[in-house]
Amino acid sequence: MTEHGSSTHPASESVGEQETGITVPAGFSAAAVKAGIKPSGNPDMALIVNHGPLYTAAARFTSNRVVASPVKWTRSHNDGRFRAVVVNAGNANACNGAQGDADAQTTAEKAAEILSIDAQDVAVCSTGLIGDVLPMDKILGGVEELVPLLSEEVTAGHAAAGAIMTTDLVQKESVYRGKGWSIGAMGKGVGMMAPSLATMLVFITTDAVIEDSEQLSDVLGAATKVTFDCLDVDGSTSTNDTVLLMASGASGITPDAQELKDAIHQVCLDLAMQLQADAEGVTKRVSITVKGAATDEQAKDAARVVGRDTLFKCAMFGSDPNWGRVLAAVGMAPVEMDPERISVSFNGYPVCINSTGAPGARDVDLSGADVAVEIDLAVGEGQATVWTTDLSYSYVNINSEYST
Amino acid sequence: MTEHGSSTHPASESVGEQETGITVPAGFSAAAVKAGIKPSGNPDMALIVNHGPLYTAAARFTSNRVVASPVKWTRSHNDGRFRAVVVNAGNANACNGAQGDADAQTTAEKAAEILSIDAQDVAVCSTGLIGDVLPMDKILGGVEELVPLLSEEVTAGHAAAGAIMTTDLVQKESVYRGKGWSIGAMGKGVGMMAPSLATMLVFITTDAVIEDSEQLSDVLGAATKVTFDCLDVDGSTSTNDTVLLMASGASGITPDAQELKDAIHQVCLDLAMQLQADAEGVTKRVSITVKGAATDEQAKDAARVVGRDTLFKCAMFGSDPNWGRVLAAVGMAPVEMDPERISVSFNGYPVCINSTGAPGARDVDLSGADVAVEIDLAVGEGQATVWTTDLSYSYVNINSEYST
Repeated sequence: MTEHGSSTHPASESVGEQETGITVPAGFSAAAVKAGIKPSGNPDMALIVNHGPLYTAAARFTSNRVVASPVKWTRSHNDGRFRAVVVNAGNANACNGAQGDADAQTTAEKAAEILSIDAQDVAVCSTGLIGDVLPMDKILGGVEELVPLLSEEVTAGHAAAGAIMTTDLVQKESVYRGKGWSIGAMGKGVGMMAPSLATMLVFITTDAVIEDSEQLSDVLGAATKVTFDCLDVDGSTSTNDTVLLMASGASGITPDAQELKDAIHQVCLDLAMQLQADAEGVTKRVSITVKGAATDEQAKDAARVVGRDTLFKCAMFGSDPNWGRVLAAVGMAPVEMDPERISVSFNGYPVCINSTGAPGARDVDLSGADVAVEIDLAVGEGQATVWTTDLSYSYVNINSEYST
Repeated sequence: MTEHGSSTHPASESVGEQETGITVPAGFSAAAVKAGIKPSGNPDMALIVNHGPLYTAAARFTSNRVVASPVKWTRSHNDGRFRAVVVNAGNANACNGAQGDADAQTTAEKAAEILSIDAQDVAVCSTGLIGDVLPMDKILGGVEELVPLLSEEVTAGHAAAGAIMTTDLVQKESVYRGKGWSIGAMGKGVGMMAPSLATMLVFITTDAVIEDSEQLSDVLGAATKVTFDCLDVDGSTSTNDTVLLMASGASGITPDAQELKDAIHQVCLDLAMQLQADAEGVTKRVSITVKGAATDEQAKDAARVVGRDTLFKCAMFGSDPNWGRVLAAVGMAPVEMDPERISVSFNGYPVCINSTGAPGARDVDLSGADVAVEIDLAVGEGQATVWTTDLSYSYVNINSEYST
């Protein structure tokens, strides 16, 4: 069955043998299989194992009140230590009641049994359609196949990154190389990216020596706050969002705290930009920077309101420098502003000064793939950037034909 | 120039000589002209005059902090009395700074001068593109043309209803007939319909004897709260929303307070349903009723979150009974709920019971034009309904090609 382990999604082939992904750091192995959950027959289950000597872990989860069973399982065992994570794509195991909860637990227990570790040290993540009960025969068969395929080769990490994809067109991996230690990462997610945690699954590994799980959690929280949390494709928040960071200590190196913080931020930002670029139906990558807000938090809230405004997003799709929609949108934000002194620029070109149109504003060329919107609320020093996309025909197409 | 007064938008012809609209109540006259503001050359200015004997008035305005100059003018003179309203379509006169404010005032003063009334008794409303300075020569010329065309015929009301349209495909009018008194109404608005006041212009006239403007305001507020406020096409709130109710007293009849309240509610609901049916790109009329909420207000907030969720709206466009998106959306609402006991039905068919899929849920037929979604949060007695639409290719098309 080794053909399963090396099978990757066609879109992953461009990654080839690149030295990136979750198996770059020492102490981690991964595997992927076709368990038969995705109708496409593509690989749909992955396993990541931390072989230690440390098993320090930190995680962040969706802010949605309706959470999937795997999130409930993983969140309840999020005590600073995980040794493995089982992931499936094609079925979210959300809104399946007590059956769903039991299935998440059974999945963890199965992996734990074969790996000879405690079930509470196994995280479980699912992504896909909400509301269908997991095909547990396929899931448990998948777990059985995964374990003997575990490998520390980079190709195993690539295979895992391919297996967790849903409507993603390309797989997303990242790497950071310190002196004698490294960070690897992979992620998936293309829609339902929204506040409090941009919706997706992200797995980050490092062989740095970090024994304090609170330090790891602080570093992860600081990074997600200004990366994944600032990615908002459609304002929707999934029931399954999970970001999991595991540290093996296998490098024997304890990195400088600031370097670690910067490196985790860099990897998260890299993955967030890959997620934005592959968002459902995207034709424009739009960054919205709000400055002059009362606080950074208010700047983020205001940027998010603009980033979610469908009229603004349609204008971006049409390369239409209709700055009035920015004003109309930001005027709804529940933050301090001076409604008579708001200024806006598109790609550095001032289109609105003191809430009034600037000369030539209608002629700004937005035909490129990247649009940078900057909004000045003129009340303070707060600043934040939110990344979003346009709203295209493709987005509607992809999302009107999902479950049926 | 009488041809201007009887000219109506082609789409208005089906209304014909129907006895509906703002000139049905005694004491009101109206007119419409082609002032040359709309590139299409269609009628684009309207005037409504209350000839008394009473001039009682009430109004509601957008909740957006960025407000158009005509809203600033009208809001600042909203003292319970208006004798006339000048409306233009094709230019919102929003975000035009001090020039915009001066132009709104000049428009009111021009109408007041010709009508021999006080400028502060003249309301001004604009709708159209944000950020272009009003062509004041056309506006003032339009006002001059409008006054001699004023007529109490129902055709004059129809003409006015046609002139205020922007991307509306049909004009919207309504009527209520009491014993010896009546209410007439017209409205426009197809996108940017959102919280706190569904975005649009609405004008309501009545010949009932109502001297107390606070009573009139209370009646209007009670009606808008459960009609226009519950219409949410795209979550966007315009800078120009205005609902204006004027009472002439010309019937000599003082209606029963409850009948007046019910009648105003009926007319507002009728117009709201017309606005929903003509929303930009609509292929589905979707009502979202939330019950079992802690309060009516929380029910409304929860329904609004679902009604704005683009993934849910795309599913509706695809006639896809993907109830998981309802759960994912409502889980984001900042209201009390029991995440394990949420139930959902589509067109009366249970698709989710206690946060778990119901048998046959994926087979519910949503191919019709109307979809009724009911969500039970299982925590209280609060209930509310929000009306929205699907998110279609047409919505994207219309809104990506607006200003350019």
